[in-house]
Amino acid sequence: MRCEIISVGTELLMGQIINTNAQDIAQELFSLGIGVYYQTVVGDNAPRLSDVFTQALKRADLVILTGGLGPTDDDLTRETVAAVLGLPLKENSYWVQKLREIFARFKRPMAQMNLRQAMVPQGGKILPNERGTAPGIYLEDGGKVIVLLPGPPRELLPILKEQVIPLLREKLQEQKEIALLRSKVLRIAGLGESDMAEKIKPLLEKQDNPTIAPLAKRAEVHLRLTARGGSEEEVESLLTSKAEEIKDVLGEYIYGEDEDVLELAVARLLWEKGKTIALAESCSGGLLSHRLTNISGSSRYLLAGLVTYSNEAKINILGVKQAVIEDKGAVSAEVAEAMAKGVRRLCHADIGVSITGVAGPGGGSSQKPVGLTYIALEAENLSSCRRYEFWGSRQDIKERAAQTALLLLRLHLMGKLKK
Amino acid sequence: MRCEIISVGTELLMGQIINTNAQDIAQELFSLGIGVYYQTVVGDNAPRLSDVFTQALKRADLVILTGGLGPTDDDLTRETVAAVLGLPLKENSYWVQKLREIFARFKRPMAQMNLRQAMVPQGGKILPNERGTAPGIYLEDGGKVIVLLPGPPRELLPILKEQVIPLLREKLQEQKEIALLRSKVLRIAGLGESDMAEKIKPLLEKQDNPTIAPLAKRAEVHLRLTARGGSEEEVESLLTSKAEEIKDVLGEYIYGEDEDVLELAVARLLWEKGKTIALAESCSGGLLSHRLTNISGSSRYLLAGLVTYSNEAKINILGVKQAVIEDKGAVSAEVAEAMAKGVRRLCHADIGVSITGVAGPGGGSSQKPVGLTYIALEAENLSSCRRYEFWGSRQDIKERAAQTALLLLRLHLMGKLKK
Repeated sequence: MRCEIISVGTELLMGQIINTNAQDIAQELFSLGIGVYYQTVVGDNAPRLSDVFTQALKRADLVILTGGLGPTDDDLTRETVAAVLGLPLKENSYWVQKLREIFARFKRPMAQMNLRQAMVPQGGKILPNERGTAPGIYLEDGGKVIVLLPGPPRELLPILKEQVIPLLREKLQEQKEIALLRSKVLRIAGLGESDMAEKIKPLLEKQDNPTIAPLAKRAEVHLRLTARGGSEEEVESLLTSKAEEIKDVLGEYIYGEDEDVLELAVARLLWEKGKTIALAESCSGGLLSHRLTNISGSSRYLLAGLVTYSNEAKINILGVKQAVIEDKGAVSAEVAEAMAKGVRRLCHADIGVSITGVAGPGGGSSQKPVGLTYIALEAENLSSCRRYEFWGSRQDIKERAAQTALLLLRLHLMGKLKK
Repeated sequence: MRCEIISVGTELLMGQIINTNAQDIAQELFSLGIGVYYQTVVGDNAPRLSDVFTQALKRADLVILTGGLGPTDDDLTRETVAAVLGLPLKENSYWVQKLREIFARFKRPMAQMNLRQAMVPQGGKILPNERGTAPGIYLEDGGKVIVLLPGPPRELLPILKEQVIPLLREKLQEQKEIALLRSKVLRIAGLGESDMAEKIKPLLEKQDNPTIAPLAKRAEVHLRLTARGGSEEEVESLLTSKAEEIKDVLGEYIYGEDEDVLELAVARLLWEKGKTIALAESCSGGLLSHRLTNISGSSRYLLAGLVTYSNEAKINILGVKQAVIEDKGAVSAEVAEAMAKGVRRLCHADIGVSITGVAGPGGGSSQKPVGLTYIALEAENLSSCRRYEFWGSRQDIKERAAQTALLLLRLHLMGKLKK
């Protein structure tokens, strides 16, 4: 099956936003063995979109269009696709109902133009959108598969992964065209990309099936293994055995697989061990707490996360001694330790974690430069405090601090954190 | 001058890397008033690249190709472009010399295939590459301008900015086609995309210069105005007067311009008014605190952000009465109000803001569904508490809650929040 992706949007053409959708779609299709032959970006312009879509229908078996499904007049994809295919647009009563519910829930009147989003080319199937008012559309016509998806990635991605990919897999099975390609991602933290590459150099050099692709992420590295084969069992076994080989070398640096984020790895350990935690953040400003509460069920382990930004808050809420702050400064090992102890005691938590540092860009000095950060962890039998010098923007420093605190917490929960 | 961008590379088609080049080129061309009409990604395949380039020559005055200029067999752009144009390739002696120098400097033998990188279609001009072995090429043929650029962004960007843009500017001046294009973004919150479009419908319908493009963002809408004209003064005045017209209609829904995020708008108001705040978050998990501390200098107004996730934390730290939690539930107006009052008192802040809700996906009931959220604000002369039903994923609900709290805070600081 040959695919072509058409991304619709003047903001893409003008370079105002970057086309992550085409990349994500290509990656997902790859795992089904579907090759993408062309990607085209075209503006919100009916004649040009019409030309591009007409050409794509000639060249491809599967055409995926993204964007241009909004309620306003410059959203033209639905109408243009229907016109090229010569199909009338029909109002989908299920989605009209859904739109009414959405607007009722927000107690907002529904503008007439929103009803355009319930129009579907005849024979098309609605792909419900849980995060927006424009549903996707799946359509088969003249031996071709045509898929329309909303432009915003947070709306597009769930529809793509949960609805489009399964439909295409079915289609491929019907056509007995399925070539099996599967990927597995190993997520690594606490080790830089080049250090990791050194460690697994022999594996990288003799890679074939599965292939191994390192991807540097912010404060993490991911390894994508991709195996091909004749059956599910074969590709799964290829992936599993290669993952085992890599785990033998990288060990605990691998914290998760596929979509498992670091906060989920930590959450799982907290659940397993039945431990509770409390956080005291200063320079990270609540980001550690935000990440840990992104995990559903976090109320089972997170008692509180106190962003004690001012000295007064550190003193009055956490019980840090004023003299220590005056003597050592708010960014110091002593204050980090007192914050971790204080929040643990205050919340009766098993583990207290604290972060204090200079997030910048202002507030640094030669003795305490921007990026200097202390992270402390207090538990029944352990008091640990470490010093870091992070670099980058204010956002980078906040993110590296929160990431490092999660890594320390993970090590501690695995019984591997030394003082 | 109409432009078309062709990005060559199988790794782009398969989604292994993202196409930042097309975005960067489009942005640079925009500032010269050159419109991009199509962007195409095609693999390392001579017949397909040949088709795409032939088509582009028909539609555009300027065709920019990126990638496929390397030394290996799958780098086909140079040869394919020359073949389509019917031009012989000539060895450029300056670049041969340059290649010899580069290899001598790295003390590496130069493989014969590297000499391919010194081949230029007859009449073409070398665009020296300071960071790699593949130079760019600038070519005029049959009234068209054709530019070839190496794929790696750190090689492409300097050639683009320092060589291609000046050459194109010259060309436009020759053709007396130079036009100035400038954009301004108005950032709108508290109003959905369709409601906004309804309100400014007459302006959207008669848009011409500046053009007005609505872009839906998460819990915000942006309006991008783009003006063209003969001088800086002219385009600036067009943008300013159109922005004023829109502000007359949308008023306080416009919270900022260009890169100003909502938390910055709130921070500026807090600075102006000299007010301090303290936050008590439950379901938003620290996200509000995280956003407010992303602004450099936030320690001037944010005293503390307490993520009182457990009932015990609400009771012991904020002084919420246990009976109220038992009676009304942790997600209730009464608890939200007590949290805001409690955190304001504890931190001696001018303003206390609280958020309590059901972030889901578990924990909802028919009486208190997932998404139900109370946001309270306490200040000297005001106690306000509002009820919301947000929707979407756990992340969405957290984000909408934090965004709404920022909006309420902004309204309050403008003296426009009613109880």
